[in-house]
Amino acid sequence: MAKQNIYDNEIFFEGYKKIRENEANANNVFEIPALFSLLPDLNGKSVLDLGCGFGEHCKGFIQSGAAKVVGVDISAKMLEVAREENSDPRITYLNMAMEDIGSLEEHFDVVVSSLAFHYVEDFDGVVGMIYRLLNKDGEFIFSQEHPLNTCFSGGSRWTFDENGEKIFANVSNYCVETENGSTWFVDNVKRYHRMFSTIINTLTDNGFEVKKLIEPTADAELLEKYPQFKDSRHKPDFLVVKAVKR
Amino acid sequence: MAKQNIYDNEIFFEGYKKIRENEANANNVFEIPALFSLLPDLNGKSVLDLGCGFGEHCKGFIQSGAAKVVGVDISAKMLEVAREENSDPRITYLNMAMEDIGSLEEHFDVVVSSLAFHYVEDFDGVVGMIYRLLNKDGEFIFSQEHPLNTCFSGGSRWTFDENGEKIFANVSNYCVETENGSTWFVDNVKRYHRMFSTIINTLTDNGFEVKKLIEPTADAELLEKYPQFKDSRHKPDFLVVKAVKR
Repeated sequence: MAKQNIYDNEIFFEGYKKIRENEANANNVFEIPALFSLLPDLNGKSVLDLGCGFGEHCKGFIQSGAAKVVGVDISAKMLEVAREENSDPRITYLNMAMEDIGSLEEHFDVVVSSLAFHYVEDFDGVVGMIYRLLNKDGEFIFSQEHPLNTCFSGGSRWTFDENGEKIFANVSNYCVETENGSTWFVDNVKRYHRMFSTIINTLTDNGFEVKKLIEPTADAELLEKYPQFKDSRHKPDFLVVKAVKR
Repeated sequence: MAKQNIYDNEIFFEGYKKIRENEANANNVFEIPALFSLLPDLNGKSVLDLGCGFGEHCKGFIQSGAAKVVGVDISAKMLEVAREENSDPRITYLNMAMEDIGSLEEHFDVVVSSLAFHYVEDFDGVVGMIYRLLNKDGEFIFSQEHPLNTCFSGGSRWTFDENGEKIFANVSNYCVETENGSTWFVDNVKRYHRMFSTIINTLTDNGFEVKKLIEPTADAELLEKYPQFKDSRHKPDFLVVKAVKR
C-alpha cells in the first residue's frame, strides 16, 4: 500500500511550520494536553514515537524521564529540524515510513503517535507491528483526526445561521471508508477515513485492550480564554486513544 | 436519577407497535442482525435481557439454546404482550426499571440490551450493576441509538440538495452530553446523549474489556434491496457493542 510523505513538500512544510508556531492552535489547546494526559510515568522507559516530525514530543519524553526514545518519520526535512532543535544522546531519529517499523529489532515500553495515522492507508498492518514491538503490558497512545473530520468528502463543512454562527457540522459519508483527498496548504493530501468502530476493532483484533478514549472539546473555562473554539462543542477535531498489550 | 417509562404511554405504545410490525424497518434490517451477530453460543447459558419489551429476543435466546432467560422491562404494558406472545417456562419476565437490577440475586453468563440505554440517565450505574451480575468471562452485548443521533438538539436533521437528496447529516452539540427531549409519537421522550468516548470509557472504567463495535450501515447488496436506506451511508442509526468481564 502507498506510503505518503507530504511533509517533504516545500509548500506544505512551510505552511505547517507556521501553524505550529501559533500558540493557541487546536493542537496545543486540545490534542497535545489530551495525548500527554494518557501517558504513563515514563521514568526509565523506552519510547517509540511514530510520525515524530520536529521531535518536540521526543524531547518531552526525555524530559519526563524516558531512558531512550526512537523517533520515526518519513520526512527527511522534518527530521533535519528535529536533529537541530531537539537532539539528545538518548534520542535516535530514524527516517523511515511507519509502515516499515516491522524491521526494527528492539522492543519498547510505550509507543506514541501524534496526528499521523489518518495519513496511513494500512492502519491494520501498522497496529499489528506496534503490538509486536511492545513489551508485555506496554502502552500504545495515539491521536488522530476525529472520524467526523476524516469523513469529509466535499461541500461546506458547516451550516451557518443568519448571524454567521455555526449551527451544524455537515457530516457526509461517515460510513464510507475511503481515502479523502483534502486541500491543506497543497492539493490532495491523502487522508484515510475510518469509522470509530473500525479504529477500535483494529486495536482489539490485533490483541490490544482499549483503556481510554478522549474526544477533546472546549469546556467553559477554555471557551472563556479561547472563544474561537466554540465549534468544538459541535464536533471535536481529534480522537485520542490509549490501549494496552496484555 | 429519573427512571423513564415511556412505553406505558398509550399513544407511544400503539405507534411503537406499528413500526415494529413493518418488516423493513431499521431495527430489523440493521440493529437486530448486528446485535445477534455479536452473541456467543447460548447453549446452556443464562441470559439477562434489559429492556426486553415484547420479549421477542427472550424467546429467540431460548430458541438458540439458552437454559434460562430473565427479561426486565419498566413497562407493564410491554410485559403483558411478552407474557402472551413470548412465554416459555424458562423465561421469567420482571417488571422493574433496569436501574433497579442491583436487587437481583442470581448471576448470568450473558447480558443483552437492545435499544434501551439511550433512555437511561445513569448509564454508569447500570453498567456497574451489569458487571456485578455477570459471571467471570460473561459477555455484555448491547445496542443503542448512535451518538450522531442522540446528539440531535433541534432544527432539521438533514441538508438536502436541489433534487431533494440528503447530502449532509446535520450534527450539532455532539460534545454536549445532556438530555435531549425528542418527539417520537409523543412529546418529550427523553434521550440521554453520550459521546462515543463516554460510552467506551464507562465500560472500561467499570472493568469491562471492549471486544467489538458495529455501526451498521447499508452495503451495496442491501441498498439494492432497500434503496430507502441510502441515508445510512452518511450516518448510522445504531451503535452495537460487545464487552467481556475478565
